[in-house]
Amino acid sequence: MAKKRRIMLTVSYDGTNYSGWALQSSTPNTVEGVLNRAIHGLTGEDIAVIGASRTDAGVHAYGNVAVFDTCSTIPGDRFSFALNHILPEDVRVVESMEVAPEFHPRHCDTEKTYEYRVLNTKMPVPIRRLYTYHFSMPLDEEKMQEAAEYLVGEHDFTSFCNVESQAASHVRTIKDITVTRNGDEVIISVTGNGFLYNMVRIIAGTLILVGRGKKEPSEVKRMLESRDRKAAGPTAPPEGLFLIKYKFLDGVPTV
Amino acid sequence: MAKKRRIMLTVSYDGTNYSGWALQSSTPNTVEGVLNRAIHGLTGEDIAVIGASRTDAGVHAYGNVAVFDTCSTIPGDRFSFALNHILPEDVRVVESMEVAPEFHPRHCDTEKTYEYRVLNTKMPVPIRRLYTYHFSMPLDEEKMQEAAEYLVGEHDFTSFCNVESQAASHVRTIKDITVTRNGDEVIISVTGNGFLYNMVRIIAGTLILVGRGKKEPSEVKRMLESRDRKAAGPTAPPEGLFLIKYKFLDGVPTV
Repeated sequence: MAKKRRIMLTVSYDGTNYSGWALQSSTPNTVEGVLNRAIHGLTGEDIAVIGASRTDAGVHAYGNVAVFDTCSTIPGDRFSFALNHILPEDVRVVESMEVAPEFHPRHCDTEKTYEYRVLNTKMPVPIRRLYTYHFSMPLDEEKMQEAAEYLVGEHDFTSFCNVESQAASHVRTIKDITVTRNGDEVIISVTGNGFLYNMVRIIAGTLILVGRGKKEPSEVKRMLESRDRKAAGPTAPPEGLFLIKYKFLDGVPTV
Repeated sequence: MAKKRRIMLTVSYDGTNYSGWALQSSTPNTVEGVLNRAIHGLTGEDIAVIGASRTDAGVHAYGNVAVFDTCSTIPGDRFSFALNHILPEDVRVVESMEVAPEFHPRHCDTEKTYEYRVLNTKMPVPIRRLYTYHFSMPLDEEKMQEAAEYLVGEHDFTSFCNVESQAASHVRTIKDITVTRNGDEVIISVTGNGFLYNMVRIIAGTLILVGRGKKEPSEVKRMLESRDRKAAGPTAPPEGLFLIKYKFLDGVPTV
């Protein structure tokens, strides 16, 4: 039997038809489950991929990351090609490579970038309903940007975290937030070292309140300081959220 | 009972889940059928909308047009709002208005614009799989534009028409074709006075052959002259096709 190797996959998916990334007994269709089955189909091995980010139901990704161990002799960079023949069309492995056996995508210093996309038109657009959050009232993206600045840096993000979060600490560092208008979309782009449960969607819901004039930008500072989920805005719906990319700050160790 | 009035709808839809616009005994889910049922739900009348364009299964629209007659007292411009509460999310009435009773969207001089969208990237992108045709080999859009010029004007488009077409004449006038690259998409935009069965998809399939270097631009002239479907390229798949807009050249008569 060949030596055990660790393979890293960069995965792009349309989250519409999935109950999220993570396998749970009650969730019939998960991205993790689909990947495990496809790799099993290819190698015959029982596989449990380790995902970098457990995206919620309906959330999309361009670049989530997963690793798994295999004794197969398929070259690391060929898994992408081979798996894309087996996977459903809404999940694609955009890159695959062999990495050092000790590499674990959740035990690294990382920077993750998420985008939240708001379709800011009077009328919804059917072909975009699954990939944007439609918001019909005018949004002032400059005020949204002003509000977003208060979130940059290291903070306790309890106000911007689902109350069911089991994270030991709610302190995270947001490195950058930009709010830009691109045609008929308002795009909130957030980069940070880690995100709490629903954090980007609560940030989006809060910035939308500011953008429509229901809250002043400076109120975001007080929301943060209150460390109370009720102080911040609503959780924006999942279809607007995209995990854009993962950056491993110390690089990815290869073999 | 109120006077009978004719209402015109401008309809945007995601064609993914429909077997096209037109009601047929064998097609369980059509845009036409969904509209008839929604208007029946609103007015209680038996409705058969008259559509301007019978788009194929999987083809999308921003601005298809339909008219119907009603004795209801709902103001013409309120049908949009009222129907959008009943219709599924993948069909939206973007505008509604009362028009003259003799207005028939297929018996007018019109200009229609279609777009065919090719995602020209090495790797497919899951969230765009339903709204573009993915083509991974490089495309030379300048050669495609050069080839497209041969199609502009009044021609017999038999070579660019599904052999099952029942049209009495295959002569149509293409007013304009542009092939542009917008980021990672190559967009073929075609405006004309009318289109034969599969005509835009066959034009797209042919221009893609030129773009990848399998045919010279000048060969399109010979394809057209041969009046033989086998002379042109393949029919490109439906998911890349969008009916963008209808222009009624003599205006829409109101009441």
